[in-house]
Amino acid sequence: MFFIPDHDLPSANRQQRLARRPDGSPVASDFALAEAPVPDPADGEVLVRNLYLSADPVQRGWMARPDVQQVGETVRALGVGIVVKSRIDGIAEGDIVYGIFGWQDYAAASRSDILAHVGTPRVAVSAYAGALGMPGVTAWLALNDIAPPKPGQTVLVSTAAGTVGSMVGQIAARAGARPIGLTGSDEKVALCTSHFGYAAAYNYKTCDLGAVLAEASPDGFDTFYDNTGGPILDTAMRHMKRYGRIIACGTAATPSWTPPPTGLRNEREILMRALTWTGFVIFDHADRFEAAVKELSELAATGAFHFEEDIDTGMAAVPDALPAILTGKNKGKKLIFIGRD
Amino acid sequence: MFFIPDHDLPSANRQQRLARRPDGSPVASDFALAEAPVPDPADGEVLVRNLYLSADPVQRGWMARPDVQQVGETVRALGVGIVVKSRIDGIAEGDIVYGIFGWQDYAAASRSDILAHVGTPRVAVSAYAGALGMPGVTAWLALNDIAPPKPGQTVLVSTAAGTVGSMVGQIAARAGARPIGLTGSDEKVALCTSHFGYAAAYNYKTCDLGAVLAEASPDGFDTFYDNTGGPILDTAMRHMKRYGRIIACGTAATPSWTPPPTGLRNEREILMRALTWTGFVIFDHADRFEAAVKELSELAATGAFHFEEDIDTGMAAVPDALPAILTGKNKGKKLIFIGRD
Repeated sequence: MFFIPDHDLPSANRQQRLARRPDGSPVASDFALAEAPVPDPADGEVLVRNLYLSADPVQRGWMARPDVQQVGETVRALGVGIVVKSRIDGIAEGDIVYGIFGWQDYAAASRSDILAHVGTPRVAVSAYAGALGMPGVTAWLALNDIAPPKPGQTVLVSTAAGTVGSMVGQIAARAGARPIGLTGSDEKVALCTSHFGYAAAYNYKTCDLGAVLAEASPDGFDTFYDNTGGPILDTAMRHMKRYGRIIACGTAATPSWTPPPTGLRNEREILMRALTWTGFVIFDHADRFEAAVKELSELAATGAFHFEEDIDTGMAAVPDALPAILTGKNKGKKLIFIGRD
Repeated sequence: MFFIPDHDLPSANRQQRLARRPDGSPVASDFALAEAPVPDPADGEVLVRNLYLSADPVQRGWMARPDVQQVGETVRALGVGIVVKSRIDGIAEGDIVYGIFGWQDYAAASRSDILAHVGTPRVAVSAYAGALGMPGVTAWLALNDIAPPKPGQTVLVSTAAGTVGSMVGQIAARAGARPIGLTGSDEKVALCTSHFGYAAAYNYKTCDLGAVLAEASPDGFDTFYDNTGGPILDTAMRHMKRYGRIIACGTAATPSWTPPPTGLRNEREILMRALTWTGFVIFDHADRFEAAVKELSELAATGAFHFEEDIDTGMAAVPDALPAILTGKNKGKKLIFIGRD
C-alpha cells in the first residue's frame, strides 16, 4: 500500500467536462474544467482517487453518442486509481483499480465500472492503464480468440507501435510467430524492431506498401491484426494467405464516416482467399477482463513486455491529450498523472 | 442399372472447346464443336459417358485463367454420367458419377476428377449435378460449417432462388431458422416462398432494400448467406445483428473486376457489429464432397427438397447455356441432356 486510504478528502472534485459535442475530431476547447463535491460512495460502490487519467481513441466514439456522453457532464474516460473508501465486499481501501472512472479526481464506481480490480500492482501502476489495461487486454484477447499465433506464422499488424500494436507484436513473437509491423514514422519503425518483437517493420507513409508486403512475406500473411482499415487494409487483404484471418480492431485510417467513405470492394478477396474477417470490441468482454489482466501482469512481472508511456502531469494537461493521440503526436500510451495535484 | 455398360462406343467423341478466351462475360461464339477419338481409360481411370452437362458460374473464373483452361481445349465443366469402363477399384461399370468431366460425350476420369461416386442414384440422375451436386453441397457445407442455422435465427440469402440459394432456404427452414430471400424477379419471389422454404422474399430490383430488411427483421439478421456481394452486401451488412455471420459464396453482382470496382467501406460494420465474414470455396472441400452428397441424397429421397431444373437437350445447345445463366435467363439448374444424342 503506497497511499494513505484515510487521507483528508478535498472540498472539491475537479472534473474535465464535455463543453460541447466535437465537430469531427475532438479539440482541447471541447473540454472545460469544473468542480463538484466529492461523491459519497453508495452501498456497492467504492470511492476511487484517480492517479492516472487515460486518453483513448474509443472516447471519440463515446463523445459522438448522446446516449453515452452528455454535454456538460464529466468526460467518460478510463483511469487507474486507488480505493479510498470501499463499500464493495472484496475490494479493500488501498487497492488499485482500473476502470471507467471519468476525467476527474474522484469517482464513485460500481463493480460494473471497474474493469480490473488489481489489488496490489505487480508492475508500475501506470501500466494497468496501457499494456496491462484496455489496449493490452484487447491485443491479448483478440489475437488469442480469433487467430492464436502459431510458430512460423506471419502476422501483419497495423499501427504496430501503438499500445495495442506493440503488445500484439510481443505476444505474437513470444508464441514463435513472425510479426511484421506497419507504422507511420521511421522512429516508430525502429522501436518496432528493437523493442516490440517485430521481425521487420515499415513506414507505410514512405514505402510502396504492396511491394514491401510481397517482399516481407512472399507467401502472404496468416493473420492481419488491423487497427487502421482504409487503404492499408485494402492492400493487406491482397497479400493474405488463403484461409488467413483478419482481426478488425480499429479504423484509425478513416477520420470521418460522414459521408460514408468508399474504397476497393473486398468481397472477392474474402471469397477467393477463403479468408475470415472478424471484428473485436473489448467492451463486450468485460467478464474476462480481470482474468486477462492477471495473466498479462504475471508475464509483465517477469519483464516479458516492453512498453512506452507518454505521461503528462496535472489536470490542466488533460484537454490536449485526446487531440494528441488522434493526430499521432504521442510517443507511447498517453496518460495524465494527477496523483500529486 | 439403366444403361448398357458394354454399349458400342462411337467412332468420335464430340467436344465443346474454348475457341477463344472470353472478353468479359462468355458468349456462345466463344465455344466451338469439335471431335476427337474416344479416350481409352488408363489404369486408375474410368471412361464416363456424360448424360447431363452442367453450366455453372464457376466456369467463368476457370475460363479466365490460362493455368486452368487453355484455348482450343475441351471446356472444363461439371457433368453427371455413367461409367462405361472402369479401371478404378470400387467403381463399377454402370455406376453414376459426378465430376469435372468437361463438355464432351466421353471423359477419361481419374479419382480426383470425380467429386461424387454416386453408384445407384436415389433420385433423378440430373439432381446430382444441381441440388445434390456442387450447388447443393456448397449450400450444405458452407451453411453448416460457418453458421449452422438454429431455431429462431433469421437467415438472409441473396440469389435466393438460384440452385445454391434455394437449397440454403430449405436447409435453414428444416433447421427451424427463418430464411429471408432476395431475388431478381417477382416470379422467383413467389417460388422462394411457395417452394424454397423462405418465410419471406423480396425482389431487390424493385424494393427499397434497406426499408425491406428493417421490416423483415427489425432486430437484424443472424446470418447472411451472400451470393452477390455489391450493393446488396453493403446494405445487408448494415442490417446484421451484432456477432452475426456473413458467408461469402459468390459475387454475382459484380460483372467485372477490371478495373477494380469500389463501394462503401465496410470495416467499421465488421468492427462495431463484431461480425465474422468468411469465404467459402467448395473445391477446397473435395474430400468431404461425397459424404455430403450421401447425406443430402438420403434427405432428398424422402422428398425433403424441392428443386427446379432448366434442361436443354443436345450438344448443340451447350454454347448458349453459360451465357444464359450469367444473365439470369435460366429457371432452375441449367443442364444439357446429351444421353440420347
